[in-house]
Amino acid sequence: MGMISLLDIRARVADGTLSAADAIQTARERIAARDPAIGAVLRTAPEAPAPESGPLAGIAVGIKDIIDTADMATESGSEIYSGWRPRADAAIVSRLRALGAVPLAKTATTAFAGLDPAATVNPHDPGHTPGGSSSGSAAAIAAGMLPLALGTQTGGSVIRPAAFCGIAAIKPSFRLLPTVGVKTFSWALDTVGLFGASVADIAHALALIADRPGIEAPAPEHPRLALCLQDFAGSADADALAALDHAARAAERAGAVLRDLVPPEPFARAWAAHPTVQDFEARQALAWEYAEHREALPPVLRGQLDRAQDLSAADYDAARREAHRARRLLKELFADVDAILTVSSVGRAPKGLGSTGDARFNRLWTLMGVPCVTVPVPGDGLPLGVQVIARFGDDGRALAVARMIEGALARA
Amino acid sequence: MGMISLLDIRARVADGTLSAADAIQTARERIAARDPAIGAVLRTAPEAPAPESGPLAGIAVGIKDIIDTADMATESGSEIYSGWRPRADAAIVSRLRALGAVPLAKTATTAFAGLDPAATVNPHDPGHTPGGSSSGSAAAIAAGMLPLALGTQTGGSVIRPAAFCGIAAIKPSFRLLPTVGVKTFSWALDTVGLFGASVADIAHALALIADRPGIEAPAPEHPRLALCLQDFAGSADADALAALDHAARAAERAGAVLRDLVPPEPFARAWAAHPTVQDFEARQALAWEYAEHREALPPVLRGQLDRAQDLSAADYDAARREAHRARRLLKELFADVDAILTVSSVGRAPKGLGSTGDARFNRLWTLMGVPCVTVPVPGDGLPLGVQVIARFGDDGRALAVARMIEGALARA
Repeated sequence: MGMISLLDIRARVADGTLSAADAIQTARERIAARDPAIGAVLRTAPEAPAPESGPLAGIAVGIKDIIDTADMATESGSEIYSGWRPRADAAIVSRLRALGAVPLAKTATTAFAGLDPAATVNPHDPGHTPGGSSSGSAAAIAAGMLPLALGTQTGGSVIRPAAFCGIAAIKPSFRLLPTVGVKTFSWALDTVGLFGASVADIAHALALIADRPGIEAPAPEHPRLALCLQDFAGSADADALAALDHAARAAERAGAVLRDLVPPEPFARAWAAHPTVQDFEARQALAWEYAEHREALPPVLRGQLDRAQDLSAADYDAARREAHRARRLLKELFADVDAILTVSSVGRAPKGLGSTGDARFNRLWTLMGVPCVTVPVPGDGLPLGVQVIARFGDDGRALAVARMIEGALARA
Repeated sequence: MGMISLLDIRARVADGTLSAADAIQTARERIAARDPAIGAVLRTAPEAPAPESGPLAGIAVGIKDIIDTADMATESGSEIYSGWRPRADAAIVSRLRALGAVPLAKTATTAFAGLDPAATVNPHDPGHTPGGSSSGSAAAIAAGMLPLALGTQTGGSVIRPAAFCGIAAIKPSFRLLPTVGVKTFSWALDTVGLFGASVADIAHALALIADRPGIEAPAPEHPRLALCLQDFAGSADADALAALDHAARAAERAGAVLRDLVPPEPFARAWAAHPTVQDFEARQALAWEYAEHREALPPVLRGQLDRAQDLSAADYDAARREAHRARRLLKELFADVDAILTVSSVGRAPKGLGSTGDARFNRLWTLMGVPCVTVPVPGDGLPLGVQVIARFGDDGRALAVARMIEGALARA
C-alpha cells in the first residue's frame, strides 16, 4: 500500500532532496486521498510552517485521540468529550515538537481506549477490524498516510492493532515514554507506544524521543531466543503458530540460538491477575465519567466498569503481589535469554467491526512492564506478526532482535 | 483557633444533632469570615444541595488547585492556567463526592506545586510562611475553615506545611490515592495527601477514601520506634530536635520501645538522588509550559527547569538505581521496627513569605514511597511537628503510632 518510511524521509531531508514542509504536505495529501475509505484520522492540525530543522523535521505524526494536543480537540473516542480542547500538549507531544516533528493528525481510538470498536477499518480489508484501541494510529501507518504514530497499550492495544494491520510497533518499557497528558485507563499499565513502517523506523524514533541513543544498538551476533507459546492464555490460531515457526526458523538461519520456554506457574497467575489490576484502577480513573455520564459510555466499557465496582482493595493487592512475583521470575529468566519470541495475537484480524480482537497474548507482558515489539511476517491473506520481548529497560535489545528477524524474514 | 474536627461533625450528623447542609454552610461562613486575613481559599463551589447521606456527608473539603474540579476553575497557581476549567473531576474528587463529602473550596498552591511562594500566610502569624506547595490546604485547616483538605507532596509539600501550621497530615504510600486529574510535577514522586485537625480525623478520612477499613487499626501495645536524625540531610534546628525528644519521651511513657537509627550510607545517596528523579520528570511533565510560556513561569521554577534541561537519561537511571537500593534496605529495616520517628521540618515556619521552607527532612521518604504522618507537638511559639514513618503499604500503622504519640503529647 506504499507505506511511508521515517528513515527514508529523514535521509532525503538530510541530503536536501526533500524539504520538511513538502514531507508534511505529502502526509496531508495522503490523508485526504486515502482516509475517506479507512476512517483513521479524526482531524488534522491547522496549517502552519513546518520546522525545517531538528532530528525529526519532516516527520508527520499521528496522535491517538486520548493524548492531549493544545491545537486540536481531544475527544477520547467519546461524545462525553465532544469538542474538548485541552490547554496543554501532552508531554510526548511537546517532545515531538522539540525534535522538529509535526503532530499532524488525531487518530481514532476506541472510547477511552476500551474494547468498544471505533469506526476505523483494516486497510488490508475493510470488512475486518484494524484492532484496538489504537485503531487509527495503526491503520494510518498501514495505509501509508503517516510515517509515525502514537498509541497506548493497557492490555494489547499497540501490539494487536499493529499485527492486524501488518506494521511494526513497540510498546516500550513501562514509563520509558511519559504518560502526562494521556487519558488514564490504568496507571500501572498504560504505556505509550510507537507505530511505523519498519522496526528500524520505530527504533530511530524511540531513540530520539527517549533521548537514549543506545536504543539503536545492533543485536548480539547469536541472540538467545526463548520460544514461548503462552499456553496459560490458551492456544493461538494455526496460522499464527505457523507464522511464529516461520519467524523462528528465519531467526535461526540468521544466527539466533533458540530454545523452548515453558512458562513457570506464577506467569499464569499474573496473566489472570491483569484484569483485576486494570479494572480496579479504571474504576477510579474513569470515576467522573461513570458517575456523571454512565449512559453515554459504550456497552462493553460500561459493563466492565459496572463489574469493577465490586472489586475490593484486597483483590487488587493480591493481583499486584502476583504481578510482583512474576516480574522477579521473568528478570531471572532474562539472565540467560536475550529475548522471548511469541505470537503477537491470537490470529489474523477477525472479520467484522464488532470486536477489536483479543489481547490475551499481550496482557502478561504489559503487566510485566517489559518492552514488546511486533514484526510483520510476510505471507498471503491478512497480516500476522510475531512478538519480541526483552527485559525491562532494554528496549534496544528488543528492537535489535526484532530488526534481525525482520531482515531474516525479508530474505526467507 | 477553633479547628473543625471531622470526627466531631460525623458524630453530630450521625446522631441527628447537625444536618450535613448546616455543616457545609458553617464551612462557607468560616471561609467568608477568616480567609480575607489568610488567603488560603481561591474560590468556592457553586451553591448546591449537600448530600445528607454517605460516610462523609457534612464534610467540606479543600482541594489544592492543581487537582481538577469540573465545577470550579483549576489554575495550578499560574496565570498560564488563568480561568482554566477541566472537563472532569480528578479521581480523588469523584471519590469524595461518592462518599457524600462536598469538594467546597479550591485552595492556594504554589505555581505547579513548585517552590515559588503563593500569597497565603501562616494562620499562627501572618508574617510567616504557611509552607508550600499545599499552602492553602494546610492554612485552611489550621484557621478552622474546613475539616479536611487535599494536598500533594513531591518533596515535602504535605508534611512541611502541616508542621508549619500546627495540624495533622498524612502523605500516604505512593499511589494509595489516585493522581488521575492531578497536575503532574514528577510521576514517580507526586503523592496526594490529607490534612486535618487531628490524626484520628485523617485516619478516618483515609480509610474511607481508600476503601481500606484496616487503616483505622489500633497501634501495637509496645510499638518499636527507631529515632532518626537524618544526619545525611544536615542538622535540624535546636527547637525541632527538642520537640522530637519531647515526642520520643512521651511515646516511651505510653509504652513505645525506642532505639536510635543510624541511617545506612545508601540512604544518603538516595536522598541526594531525589532532585534528579524529580527534575528529570518535571522537565517532561512541564514541557509545554516551558516551551510555550517560559517567561510566565515564576523564577525559582523557571531556574529549576532551565537546569533540568541538562540532565541526561543516564543521570536519571543512576538516581533511580540509588532509590531502588535504599528502598530494599528500608524494607529490611522495617522487619523489626514498627515506625521511624524523625523531625517533620528543619524547624518552625521561617519568617517572611519569600520562601516556603526547606524539604530536606521529607525528600528521602517521598522517594521511598512510604507513608509519613506529621503530628503537631504542643508548645509555645510557632508550631512544630514530628514525623512518623512506616513501611510501604502500612499507612494504618503510621497513623496508629502517630495517634498514640498525639495522645501521649496531650497528656504530657
